[in-house]
Amino acid sequence: MATIKDVAKEAGVSIATTSRVINNSPHTSETAIIAVKAAMEKLDYRPNANARALVNKSSNTVGVLVGDVSAPFFGTMVKAIDDIASQQSKQLLIGCGYHDPVKEKNAINLLINSRCESLVIHSKGLSNAELIKLSSEIPGMVFINRNVEEIASRCIALDNRKGAYIATEHLIKNGHTHIGYLASNHDIDDAYDRRDGYLDALRDNGIEIRDEYIEYVEPDEAGGEQAIINLIAKNTPITAIATYNDYMAAGCMTLLQENGVKIPEDMSVIGFDDGHIARHIYPRLTTIRYPINVMANEALKLSLQLVNNENTEYSGKKLFMPVLVKRASVGIKKTLE
Amino acid sequence: MATIKDVAKEAGVSIATTSRVINNSPHTSETAIIAVKAAMEKLDYRPNANARALVNKSSNTVGVLVGDVSAPFFGTMVKAIDDIASQQSKQLLIGCGYHDPVKEKNAINLLINSRCESLVIHSKGLSNAELIKLSSEIPGMVFINRNVEEIASRCIALDNRKGAYIATEHLIKNGHTHIGYLASNHDIDDAYDRRDGYLDALRDNGIEIRDEYIEYVEPDEAGGEQAIINLIAKNTPITAIATYNDYMAAGCMTLLQENGVKIPEDMSVIGFDDGHIARHIYPRLTTIRYPINVMANEALKLSLQLVNNENTEYSGKKLFMPVLVKRASVGIKKTLE
Repeated sequence: MATIKDVAKEAGVSIATTSRVINNSPHTSETAIIAVKAAMEKLDYRPNANARALVNKSSNTVGVLVGDVSAPFFGTMVKAIDDIASQQSKQLLIGCGYHDPVKEKNAINLLINSRCESLVIHSKGLSNAELIKLSSEIPGMVFINRNVEEIASRCIALDNRKGAYIATEHLIKNGHTHIGYLASNHDIDDAYDRRDGYLDALRDNGIEIRDEYIEYVEPDEAGGEQAIINLIAKNTPITAIATYNDYMAAGCMTLLQENGVKIPEDMSVIGFDDGHIARHIYPRLTTIRYPINVMANEALKLSLQLVNNENTEYSGKKLFMPVLVKRASVGIKKTLE
Repeated sequence: MATIKDVAKEAGVSIATTSRVINNSPHTSETAIIAVKAAMEKLDYRPNANARALVNKSSNTVGVLVGDVSAPFFGTMVKAIDDIASQQSKQLLIGCGYHDPVKEKNAINLLINSRCESLVIHSKGLSNAELIKLSSEIPGMVFINRNVEEIASRCIALDNRKGAYIATEHLIKNGHTHIGYLASNHDIDDAYDRRDGYLDALRDNGIEIRDEYIEYVEPDEAGGEQAIINLIAKNTPITAIATYNDYMAAGCMTLLQENGVKIPEDMSVIGFDDGHIARHIYPRLTTIRYPINVMANEALKLSLQLVNNENTEYSGKKLFMPVLVKRASVGIKKTLE
């Protein structure tokens, strides 16, 4: 990793001048600013957060990277982190990465440059190698909803595969054998893991896997509607549907009900996440609880311990566990069909 | 407003030292740091964002203050701002104020100290006087969903009262005369304005106002459920319900449907906001579109113009207008009741 000395040498100015540019001090010439900034960029130099903390005497700001803050899942995550942060009189800064590697990188840099030392990062765009590098540079950085073996003690992750397994198994236990799956078409681990959990459950219960029962769509309400339109079009004998998330389940259920299909009498639907809406749509959604509150709390606590050089007991060897939440959208398969 | 000179004098150190402390430069003594920070606090000194912009040569970070990021309304707002910001290669930092004056103040300061010069502020906790003071100090600060006469050209606000009027009038046009209202119990303008719009519409149509038809609850799904439980308990002849927002409408509709009340056959319900869920609950919600996308876009554009000292044509004299979006939750009052 480049030091301030390297930057000064590259820019052809003194270390003092380099420091003034880095710290945006006044009385710096425009030439120096341009030279130093170019050198910083070339050498990928990042002012050390710890060194700055010594000057600041304390780290009061927690940085959070989310995917898309307009997805309620991330709202819940941020809220959980903020609850713990404000108990400790810390403030939050939030950046959005949209699961895009460049945007994620930029947003993380912005949080670091805004003097966040505690960082809770939800990254789906950056590679494992990049996260390993970042975590070695920033002691207080932890990753949520991501599982990287080399830095497991810095990762707070859910067993997504198990969650989808539990969901599908719940449908099977209710007598369903023709079970559709509304899959996310995003190229992220969560999408594959959850679909694989659905496939595992079918396999373990001796139920034939049919590709035509799976629809890959955007993981939102509109995607859920589109997926169920496709499944109906194919005229399959499906009596139950597992979904990648609650929003898809909600979209699917609305479309079914508009078409006179009763839930759960004619069709059972199970969600995933147990987000905001699950409790409040009609019928209330049976779903898998993603314990994002617990996980977000743990992530922040871990990050604060790391910043303070405290011993952490967290090994990251265990994944967090999803749980079935029974409500009103799953019923027993009718026997006389 | 205090200058760096005042701070140096108060702290008993040189201006150069003061500048180093303010910019977190290295090689600053601990005594100086303590003295300068105390002086800054005492004098309420805030490093001038414009002066820093000259050093930075550009302002690349946009700060956004929201109420509670876990409320989907704010997610939509942030997303709209981010869309414009990224088109201009600008990044976003988000802070949460929870409609609390102290938290809002802290979060705004944190955004300013993180070198945001463009600031889109959703404040419900700070007084008009405080916002006027802030806006005079920070040229690029604009306020969304707030209407302060003295700084109208910096405010992007919705005609909430008109929105609730349109909603109530739509119910009246469908033959309803016994119309309940689910009001927000939050002590903010929006809550009063929307309720008053409901009352205006009743009055203008010669319909008697009955206090027992109005329930004040938390403006979320659980609040909506509680409110409709209360209205049912009072055994009123209500055939239609206007609501403070879509979430309350959703909670209310779920509870009604669980109790065998058909929507809209037995009860009409109209929302407010046209947020994420409105389109996707069953039945699809007739509601009032809060054009938060348009408003958020306008707010950011205005802020960027102000930062760049461009002429703005925006006078703030006109409020943004809500619009009725007809879906499936409002029906004509049965005549044989």
